[in-house]
Amino acid sequence: MSERRNRQFVLDTPPTGKLGHDNFRLTESAVPDPADGEALVQARYISMDAANRAWMQGATYRSALTGGMVMAGAGIGVVLASRADGLSPGDLVYGDLGWQDYATLPAEGLRKLEPREPLTHHLSVYGIPGLTAYLGLKEIGVPKPGDTILVSAAAGAVGSLVGQVAKAMGCRTIGIAGGPEKCALLTEQLGFDAAVDYKAEGPLRKRLKAVAPDGVDIYWDNVAGEILEAAIFNMALHGRIICCGAIAHYDGAAPAHGPRGIPGLLVTRRIAMRGFIVFDHYDQRDAALAQLESWVREGRIAVREDIIDGFECLPEALLGLLAGGNVGKRMVRIS
Amino acid sequence: MSERRNRQFVLDTPPTGKLGHDNFRLTESAVPDPADGEALVQARYISMDAANRAWMQGATYRSALTGGMVMAGAGIGVVLASRADGLSPGDLVYGDLGWQDYATLPAEGLRKLEPREPLTHHLSVYGIPGLTAYLGLKEIGVPKPGDTILVSAAAGAVGSLVGQVAKAMGCRTIGIAGGPEKCALLTEQLGFDAAVDYKAEGPLRKRLKAVAPDGVDIYWDNVAGEILEAAIFNMALHGRIICCGAIAHYDGAAPAHGPRGIPGLLVTRRIAMRGFIVFDHYDQRDAALAQLESWVREGRIAVREDIIDGFECLPEALLGLLAGGNVGKRMVRIS
Repeated sequence: MSERRNRQFVLDTPPTGKLGHDNFRLTESAVPDPADGEALVQARYISMDAANRAWMQGATYRSALTGGMVMAGAGIGVVLASRADGLSPGDLVYGDLGWQDYATLPAEGLRKLEPREPLTHHLSVYGIPGLTAYLGLKEIGVPKPGDTILVSAAAGAVGSLVGQVAKAMGCRTIGIAGGPEKCALLTEQLGFDAAVDYKAEGPLRKRLKAVAPDGVDIYWDNVAGEILEAAIFNMALHGRIICCGAIAHYDGAAPAHGPRGIPGLLVTRRIAMRGFIVFDHYDQRDAALAQLESWVREGRIAVREDIIDGFECLPEALLGLLAGGNVGKRMVRIS
Repeated sequence: MSERRNRQFVLDTPPTGKLGHDNFRLTESAVPDPADGEALVQARYISMDAANRAWMQGATYRSALTGGMVMAGAGIGVVLASRADGLSPGDLVYGDLGWQDYATLPAEGLRKLEPREPLTHHLSVYGIPGLTAYLGLKEIGVPKPGDTILVSAAAGAVGSLVGQVAKAMGCRTIGIAGGPEKCALLTEQLGFDAAVDYKAEGPLRKRLKAVAPDGVDIYWDNVAGEILEAAIFNMALHGRIICCGAIAHYDGAAPAHGPRGIPGLLVTRRIAMRGFIVFDHYDQRDAALAQLESWVREGRIAVREDIIDGFECLPEALLGLLAGGNVGKRMVRIS
């Protein structure tokens, strides 16, 4: 055992309704030395994702989180010791480090990262959000120049990149976000052609129609619920809906029902709606990263990050994200 | 004006709830002589389709039916007189003849049919149901041999062909139908591997799981509503849902909400759900007909038709179809 002090947030009891501070418990434990095939990693940044909350609801693309487990979460860290081929002390890695200072993990669960600056971009534009935006658009949305694309949670980690990637692909981009500040950010700093505040007065369905009178060719759904429903009713003929997330459904009980217009509008407008997880498309990861790097270098993508300092802030950072408090990619700096 | 006696059913008042006899009115009118570019057609068979009811709800892929119009409906008939290039007396044609003995229509609205026997197959296996089944599977479902396919309204015009076409493509086929007689027909006469009676006791979701324990690769949805919801929860990873119709939603008010599991299950299982209308794929019509003819000739497709005799039966035939009274393709013989 290492002598290092390893703070951990444990998911004490999974939430039945809204997630709160009470669901977490701070503890400390020893750090196991790496066994054969394992490495010891010191966490640098832990990623905050709405999906963290979804994992507590049941099995998704990973097994469910249950009470008593160290809270799961992706992060980047530095290898301190290794008994695995291909990993050496000093290497930068990505993996499900969990909410703790140190993680001892099998090498299969760690991805060695090429050096890129700033480091934090490995969790934003060169991480899952950027790859999701690029590969989701390319593979599922298949945008044509001139297409109108609508994205929800547009000021978030994925949404802010979807809008900019779509713009780089030649689309007209409309973002949905909560509040005038986020909406101003979209149009003034992130190059969106229009922004719609879902918290403002008036039926969202009509307000979307006002900014997309000819219909939406591609709707990128991060939120589900009423926003998805309003979008469906605004789809153009042969439109595509990319189902990427369901934030509106994560922090509470399972939703009582799905959006109206399904399947009726899917048929009459020949809409394709498809669930997407980026891991399925990792064979195209290198090409995607090269394209994203080039757009960042050319200034066509502005990377927004929302970095919170300090291990002890982890629960608050996630609760705030679930309440829509972040702009761009939220992460917590651990060391 | 021709001296012919032309009976017509008029949609007197569009229904607000369930369609009934009161919504139709029988009348007679003169038959206009064809103008330049038009043909006079005598109806032989009028097709009964659940979509007839959907047209009364509002604009779909065609404009809405409104009160006072002759009831719309596809049919096949014989040209009696023509002032249109390419159409001559004696030609067999397909078009929206409406619920009347004679129709005078522009030639663009008529498709000249090659002679095929029996004539009624032009409304079933060689008509929209057959083309829908074949092209929907080929273009949207993209079945691989060994895939499990589930189809609802499986004893109906489209469903009975979807099951048989999918079987011919090498799939394992499961049909959902109402009542033990229809279910027996599916497995004993139409070659389905399994049938599930949605009217039987017990939760449909669990009963589907029992016959598709490894999940459904392709679900062909003709009905929407609770059956669609039960199917979504049984989809396999990377499953495809073909949205073809929404019978459960047609004969009443607009549905209050959509199926649960959307978009959550679409994301976690990477399901693609796509609305389909066969007209979009008519560039492949000839090849599709050739394939269907070959399967019919080889006895791999048994064509079920449900032919009702006599013009005056038109309203009853449609009401019965909406109540699930038909087996196979329902049509009314006019002359």
